[in-house]
Amino acid sequence: MHALPPLEQPVEWLLLVLDGAGIFVFAVSGAALALRERLDLFGVLLLAFVTALFGGILRDLLLGATPPETLTSWRNAAIALSGGIFTILARNGIGRLAKPVRLFDAIGLGLFAAAGTGKALDFQVDPLMAPAVGMVVGIGGGILRDLLVTRTPLVLQAEIYAVAALAGGYAVVAGQALGIAAQPAMIGGALLCLGLRLLALYRGWTLWQPPAPPGL
Amino acid sequence: MHALPPLEQPVEWLLLVLDGAGIFVFAVSGAALALRERLDLFGVLLLAFVTALFGGILRDLLLGATPPETLTSWRNAAIALSGGIFTILARNGIGRLAKPVRLFDAIGLGLFAAAGTGKALDFQVDPLMAPAVGMVVGIGGGILRDLLVTRTPLVLQAEIYAVAALAGGYAVVAGQALGIAAQPAMIGGALLCLGLRLLALYRGWTLWQPPAPPGL
Amino acid sequence: MHALPPLEQPVEWLLLVLDGAGIFVFAVSGAALALRERLDLFGVLLLAFVTALFGGILRDLLLGATPPETLTSWRNAAIALSGGIFTILARNGIGRLAKPVRLFDAIGLGLFAAAGTGKALDFQVDPLMAPAVGMVVGIGGGILRDLLVTRTPLVLQAEIYAVAALAGGYAVVAGQALGIAAQPAMIGGALLCLGLRLLALYRGWTLWQPPAPPGL
Repeated sequence: MHALPPLEQPVEWLLLVLDGAGIFVFAVSGAALALRERLDLFGVLLLAFVTALFGGILRDLLLGATPPETLTSWRNAAIALSGGIFTILARNGIGRLAKPVRLFDAIGLGLFAAAGTGKALDFQVDPLMAPAVGMVVGIGGGILRDLLVTRTPLVLQAEIYAVAALAGGYAVVAGQALGIAAQPAMIGGALLCLGLRLLALYRGWTLWQPPAPPGL
Repeated sequence: MHALPPLEQPVEWLLLVLDGAGIFVFAVSGAALALRERLDLFGVLLLAFVTALFGGILRDLLLGATPPETLTSWRNAAIALSGGIFTILARNGIGRLAKPVRLFDAIGLGLFAAAGTGKALDFQVDPLMAPAVGMVVGIGGGILRDLLVTRTPLVLQAEIYAVAALAGGYAVVAGQALGIAAQPAMIGGALLCLGLRLLALYRGWTLWQPPAPPGL
Repeated sequence: MHALPPLEQPVEWLLLVLDGAGIFVFAVSGAALALRERLDLFGVLLLAFVTALFGGILRDLLLGATPPETLTSWRNAAIALSGGIFTILARNGIGRLAKPVRLFDAIGLGLFAAAGTGKALDFQVDPLMAPAVGMVVGIGGGILRDLLVTRTPLVLQAEIYAVAALAGGYAVVAGQALGIAAQPAMIGGALLCLGLRLLALYRGWTLWQPPAPPGL
């Protein structure tokens, strides 16, 4: 997705722009946490980078696609670092941006999960496991972000986030099994994930939390 | 080990069943911790998956055997998720299962360490380092499990666990150096690890804890 | 760098010795933290190993150079474990060694960053991203060390450390772009990193810490 498409391909351009927007807002979420934790400039930019790009790096390591995309071009890093610098500059107003950040975060999640699933299918991953690779792209960065400031990852605690990514991934697998072409299947999966995530956000859906075992 | 062996190979069948049992109880230990930490359904199943399978994934990443076995078939994931669901359903009785869980955990440790060492030798790892790869299969999942709930990994604190895995791995290396065939050497290494681990458990052996440096 | 060079190559010998000294003092820093955290013998040696060698392992995983160098020869492990054992034996005097440890830590940082950048350039990493790979060799081990004892990595908090590694890496890239041979470019980059790090240590330079956002 990273070589620039010719101008007459509007869908490719749209996906490229949304992919970049997803990286940007993932980076904002990493940098915002780093500011709260009082990290230094390097720490803020590293958390922006890691939150935005570690999921994709992990996908490429799992698939054996080395060096990872993030290292073979400076595009991803430039977007992530821009997100980090933007967060520092706009820190006084970042609270007011919560709604658009959540929207583009959900768009990014859908795209990363669907495209990651598609890439996993190309690399001989079992179709039932490919959505797990897509999910890793969506949640891997956030997990490492939380571990680096030593808190239990948010994604493990009562929110419909990873599950939306998995649903989008299985839609891609189903589409491919039904003979739908790769790009429409991917867009369908991304939209399903986006819809589920937004519904969960605006209706306050959470995931069941099993009761604690007695005295364990 | 994952293609089904023909019925007339009882040793292969036994190893396959024990390998599955090891994955299952590793998953139980991850899920039990997740229940105690009050994670949601996704968190419980992710911790089951990671505890059971991350060690093997890390082994395959280190060896360049990508995509990892856990992604090229759904068998491992199915066993690990079954272990997670079982733990949720049986949560009120899980305390009474502590003894069989410890037994099968030790069996799994032995098998994972010995088979991991054998695979490392096949991938041109130095014979003195191959047992470290086998050990990673046995302890990698538990370390990530503990990090995800932000506690210092148990395996670093006063128990004969990783050391038993290393001993089993070096037995495999020694067997191979002495010209013993791969399968008997592996079974010998697994039994040595199992024996050491059970002895340590039932005799309460612990590893020496060096004194803290003064004022450091 | 790990096959022994012939005796008439004094620069190669010097680099090999300094590389080993860097691994040794990285291991000391891991083992010293482990002693403070009251880990057992295995935990102390594992933290020594991981602090000294995880950065290089991560570099090789990112580049697809598997199995990593640390697994294809026992040299690195032997040096790291020697550093761990030395720390246990010398624990009462380790406080007095703080100055030489800091000096060799800075030398190691410079060498690891410069050599890692050079290796990344050989593996088709984008020249703008290659210094990030070199930096990972220098800081990856320390980050995992801190995560294993559940504290926020030191390198994210107000010190000129990773930034010195990046500067050294960009010097290597610039040297290569200007047509300078690989070895002198690498030595120049290592010296730049070393100089920056020592200046920062002795002048007390720190990195800017952005103010916390209001009420975020």
